[in-house]
Amino acid sequence: MKTLSESRCFGGTQGVYSHTSQVTGCDMTFGLFLPPEAENEAVPLVWYLSGLTCTHENAMVKAGAQKWAAQEGLALVFPDTSPRGEGVPDDENYALGQGAGFYVNATEAPWSTNFRMWDYITEDLPRVLFSAFPLDESRQSIMGHSMGGHGALTIAMSFPGRFRSVSAFAPITHPTASDWGRKQLTAYLGTDESKWAPHDSVLLMRKRGFDGPILIDQGASDQFLDALKPEALAEAMMARRQQGIIRMQPGYDHSYFFVSTFMEDHIQFHAEALYD
Amino acid sequence: MKTLSESRCFGGTQGVYSHTSQVTGCDMTFGLFLPPEAENEAVPLVWYLSGLTCTHENAMVKAGAQKWAAQEGLALVFPDTSPRGEGVPDDENYALGQGAGFYVNATEAPWSTNFRMWDYITEDLPRVLFSAFPLDESRQSIMGHSMGGHGALTIAMSFPGRFRSVSAFAPITHPTASDWGRKQLTAYLGTDESKWAPHDSVLLMRKRGFDGPILIDQGASDQFLDALKPEALAEAMMARRQQGIIRMQPGYDHSYFFVSTFMEDHIQFHAEALYD
Repeated sequence: MKTLSESRCFGGTQGVYSHTSQVTGCDMTFGLFLPPEAENEAVPLVWYLSGLTCTHENAMVKAGAQKWAAQEGLALVFPDTSPRGEGVPDDENYALGQGAGFYVNATEAPWSTNFRMWDYITEDLPRVLFSAFPLDESRQSIMGHSMGGHGALTIAMSFPGRFRSVSAFAPITHPTASDWGRKQLTAYLGTDESKWAPHDSVLLMRKRGFDGPILIDQGASDQFLDALKPEALAEAMMARRQQGIIRMQPGYDHSYFFVSTFMEDHIQFHAEALYD
Repeated sequence: MKTLSESRCFGGTQGVYSHTSQVTGCDMTFGLFLPPEAENEAVPLVWYLSGLTCTHENAMVKAGAQKWAAQEGLALVFPDTSPRGEGVPDDENYALGQGAGFYVNATEAPWSTNFRMWDYITEDLPRVLFSAFPLDESRQSIMGHSMGGHGALTIAMSFPGRFRSVSAFAPITHPTASDWGRKQLTAYLGTDESKWAPHDSVLLMRKRGFDGPILIDQGASDQFLDALKPEALAEAMMARRQQGIIRMQPGYDHSYFFVSTFMEDHIQFHAEALYD
């Protein structure tokens, strides 16, 4: 693992690191914020999964999460959204290929060699994080934005007991029925839709739900609402009696201006679960 | 109007009053809490509509709302849930007749003479309240529990501009498709289901929505969940991009122990809208 930079931030440290991943077959970069408490003890960790086109950097510089994480004594990790580099396949469409890993393990050519973001986020990066930093593996929560909200929700529901809480800003909720999903799942996983189901939050909610609290924020002026389908997830959460809060926020769009506005609420929500 | 009782309560006054209603053709009793500020000025008013079997008294003594209303300087009105008295029809089923007005104007015999709770709550009682008490008609919000949540939501959506916010505890959301609804709407309004539609929150949400914020709380251990159908309202609210918050609260049932637990949040929610 290489340290690319470390900066003092709200009394803690915002670092950027890279490591060679055996899972994605390329170098991967991530951001990690450690609060002041990490100098003395292992601290809880909140994952932030980013959306389409993002690298590890977007949320790290635009979401305004460090202030609240510092107050609550929480670490934040900002992974990249896909493998990258010259030998890694890409597509001219921003919603496929580099910057658009969709948090799945691709099985189809040309993607299957590198695009294994499911295993990267759930196995490879945790191994790096918990061996190299003072992080308490028994206290983790996860959140994300848009495609990253999809990643956070699907991963949280697929690893019962690992995450105490999950939240999402404007998540892609139902990719098997969405323009943001069908094309990508076809490319990465093939045409057999039964392979898609484990990567659809609405279907996972109907089948098993999440064993902790969920917080969802959605902007009512989001330009991508038709692709996000919050109504499908809301229906599924209520039908399952899933512990959770769903909020429709009037006037807000899909940007980091929306994310940063409600970041304090999300960090406090996770802190409450992590210090329970 | 007769004063039945007035008691000091959190520095304000909890009164119980009765008046002869031309609309329901009988004497009607209501509770009214006035905060200390009402001695000097007209104060905002929050309506609380109760559920099946309740009188004006249940929420007044069990919901714990006065403490928060006093802090926020809000008045609270607790109307009865139906006409009552010896000449008023009734049914042996607790969910029809006295204590079960469903906030509609009955058109069918034997109910049509007295069971006009829609007009009572939206015309008759407001006339009494705003002529006799220091209440600011331009600042009103409305909430309710169960059948009263149904009343609050349907009335709020049907009078755009009258209420700044609406909230509900475990509301009956979709009575045209519920065991708590189809029987009563048939009895009160007849078999033509087009007459039922204006009294169904899910259908109203799909058609027009509410021009302000909505807060819904639902207990996940509510013994009546199948009749309440929060999933239908959640889906309709999100599909409409309705400003609002929906919360599924694990472990809570349908009782006033649930209502009183979250009453502070609801009063603060309304206060924010009323003092905007």
